[in-house]
Amino acid sequence: MAAVKACNILITGANRGLGLETVKQLLENSCQKHIFATCRDPDGPKSEALRELARKHPSVITIICLDVDDPCSIKESAKKVGSLLGNNGLNLLVNNAAIVARGTIHTSRVEDMKNTFNTNVIGPLLIIREYQPYLQTAAKASRTPGMSCNKAAVINISSVAGSMTRNPTFCTGFNTLPFMYAGFNMLTVLAAEELKADEILCMALHPGWVKTELGGEKAPLEPKESVEGMLRVIGSLTEKQHGGFLDYTGETIPW
Amino acid sequence: MAAVKACNILITGANRGLGLETVKQLLENSCQKHIFATCRDPDGPKSEALRELARKHPSVITIICLDVDDPCSIKESAKKVGSLLGNNGLNLLVNNAAIVARGTIHTSRVEDMKNTFNTNVIGPLLIIREYQPYLQTAAKASRTPGMSCNKAAVINISSVAGSMTRNPTFCTGFNTLPFMYAGFNMLTVLAAEELKADEILCMALHPGWVKTELGGEKAPLEPKESVEGMLRVIGSLTEKQHGGFLDYTGETIPW
Repeated sequence: MAAVKACNILITGANRGLGLETVKQLLENSCQKHIFATCRDPDGPKSEALRELARKHPSVITIICLDVDDPCSIKESAKKVGSLLGNNGLNLLVNNAAIVARGTIHTSRVEDMKNTFNTNVIGPLLIIREYQPYLQTAAKASRTPGMSCNKAAVINISSVAGSMTRNPTFCTGFNTLPFMYAGFNMLTVLAAEELKADEILCMALHPGWVKTELGGEKAPLEPKESVEGMLRVIGSLTEKQHGGFLDYTGETIPW
Repeated sequence: MAAVKACNILITGANRGLGLETVKQLLENSCQKHIFATCRDPDGPKSEALRELARKHPSVITIICLDVDDPCSIKESAKKVGSLLGNNGLNLLVNNAAIVARGTIHTSRVEDMKNTFNTNVIGPLLIIREYQPYLQTAAKASRTPGMSCNKAAVINISSVAGSMTRNPTFCTGFNTLPFMYAGFNMLTVLAAEELKADEILCMALHPGWVKTELGGEKAPLEPKESVEGMLRVIGSLTEKQHGGFLDYTGETIPW
């Protein structure tokens, strides 16, 4: 099985749900690595599980404050991570932090729509902007040709709800407007173009419908199964999947 | 040639570019109709050409103030148009108003990205929300089965830049981030689902690359040619194109 062997990894929204589960599973494989686990409020009650994990693995996990909604916070986090990386680059950036607002065309609140766009599209764009130099460093330092997540990669945890083709049949009854996923997928396409010359892989990944705060209790998948699948997919990526959209089983999703 | 024979038509951003050209060309065909030509600032200098047109055709054109960025303005416009429509519904709603912000992943300003999302995605969503009752009235009043722009339709003037499939090859060098078109296309897909039961047609239309304030001087197409094509396409639409994405020549664009 392909495994994620990236040395330096950053995950946003790492304090709960799929982000936290990803940190846990990365700890289980034996490759030497460092994980920058970022979240909005590292000292808050919702980050207790992550703090506990970091206390157990102090040489592997560094918790970093990063509020995806706040451009200053993104810049600050990049400075801090940059100083900790030193001359080593960042191999794997996982844009996982996301919010969902409830509502339909008729009931969605304007403020909620604005907030989801800010958090799920503008935030990841600014993160890619600020962290690109570290990804470039990692790509240059790698002695292997082509693209892989062990060299340098941006993985955008998106949703099939952002697929124009699949959405109408898939999302009926979900009571949420997936504009931000469509925008996030577009960011993936644009960033893939931008990062291509530096051989930095960039793709969008659908985690499945998972029992998390966002996915709700009715979801058929446990976080463990979803993240196992996603890490298998991430570990096997090559330039063939650059700019693409896959689900946690490795199946391609049409835009 | 299929012609637009819709009785009551509303066009946003009707004071310039493709919106103004659409009003002009609709005046040229002889079908009886009423055009609600909306714009942000009906009394401003940028609306002089539209005012001139309305003075010449006072029984056909009513200029309505509608600022797509302002939810209150959208509600107010709908009340006014509703009172003028009386018991007649709205047959054709053309979401044409749009703004474009310049910049790349590295240079785009956060405020500009927010504004384009508000104007090009949230605005049209609120317009569909407020005007849906009038479209329903028109659909019910029609004695023909199926869907057409003469019965009841929402046409979203989008761009091929919002196509995930076409974007990378098409938009390189345009110096603009097309998130809002991806979101607008997603709105088309969602609204098509919402409006289906009432037999209100909804689709996205790419005008081509046109010499307008947005398209710039290098564009190969004149507004006249683009609008002639779009009106031909709009006039020929049936339920087969519901929820779809076409260009001004009638060619289907992949998402």
